[in-house]
Amino acid sequence: MAGLSLALSLCLIFLPAISEASRCSIIGLPLVRNISELPQDNYGRGGLSHITVAGSLLHGLKEVEVWLQTFSPGSHTPIHRHSCEEVFLVLKGTGTLFLAPSSHGKYPGTPKEFSIYSNCTFHIPVNDAHQIWNTNEHEDLQMLVIISRPPAKVFIYEDWAMPHTAARLKFPYYWDEQCFEAPVKDEL
Amino acid sequence: MAGLSLALSLCLIFLPAISEASRCSIIGLPLVRNISELPQDNYGRGGLSHITVAGSLLHGLKEVEVWLQTFSPGSHTPIHRHSCEEVFLVLKGTGTLFLAPSSHGKYPGTPKEFSIYSNCTFHIPVNDAHQIWNTNEHEDLQMLVIISRPPAKVFIYEDWAMPHTAARLKFPYYWDEQCFEAPVKDEL
Repeated sequence: MAGLSLALSLCLIFLPAISEASRCSIIGLPLVRNISELPQDNYGRGGLSHITVAGSLLHGLKEVEVWLQTFSPGSHTPIHRHSCEEVFLVLKGTGTLFLAPSSHGKYPGTPKEFSIYSNCTFHIPVNDAHQIWNTNEHEDLQMLVIISRPPAKVFIYEDWAMPHTAARLKFPYYWDEQCFEAPVKDEL
Repeated sequence: MAGLSLALSLCLIFLPAISEASRCSIIGLPLVRNISELPQDNYGRGGLSHITVAGSLLHGLKEVEVWLQTFSPGSHTPIHRHSCEEVFLVLKGTGTLFLAPSSHGKYPGTPKEFSIYSNCTFHIPVNDAHQIWNTNEHEDLQMLVIISRPPAKVFIYEDWAMPHTAARLKFPYYWDEQCFEAPVKDEL
């Protein structure tokens, strides 16, 4: 009985923290999930809609992670690199992939440009700096994105002439922030 | 000139082998590919249509692989396991996932059943035996399948009571057979 009372008191006192932890907990998560019912947010980035379809921090995956992302006309990712593989499948719209020709120089340099379009696929080699733009003025660009080695550790460049060593690490990444912090709080 | 002649002779003599190798070569492969133009086959399995959208042997990926698979009504995967993560996104249709409750016993045992449906996602924990059926009599079941640690090393069970140790290794897997053998031939 003492144990039960204590647990109840802790619940009352730490309700907001436990509620956040529970949103990030994989215990009791249904195995089959409706993608339409998963959380969708722009995570502070204009023109973006992001859904983590299958994630490391949200769903307990260890080796792959899958995102569904929609970019409104004119919106884009930052110029960035990450030490994981990334595969894209374009579901809707058109856009441009900018990919730095080599990651062996001191900075990315002028990127190559590739047209991307509905029903195409492409992948980004590990550590190559890249950026994706929705260059279509009228239509959203929607893509499935698959990464290895989750959660993503992303280095962001201000421009293509920024040295690799000056790129800023953004970790946890935008959509991993809430659930990345939860276990740290539990340890305090 | 001697070099050119020799190359030409080799081409004439080994045309079939070179042609197969070239189909499996990633050199010169366009970065952005139209999924509708990728090879599609049933690889000897009735009711299946398989496309390797982004693959290890076909496209040079090392950490993830993406398949687009369609199962006609009544068709299904074998009962199988693999030591990689696997994520599914159901694009069309309905079906049933059979998942063995634990891989710690001597054999899979009676599987749990899960209904799967258009716009759902689920993942298979590493080494859990599983099987997917299109149980819909009228509609195809179409799914995107993502695996880690490609190419897939698959152990196949005849039934759910077959011991894990008796499951038969099928490697390379059906759609990897052609390109897996090519480098071996080149070395002879």
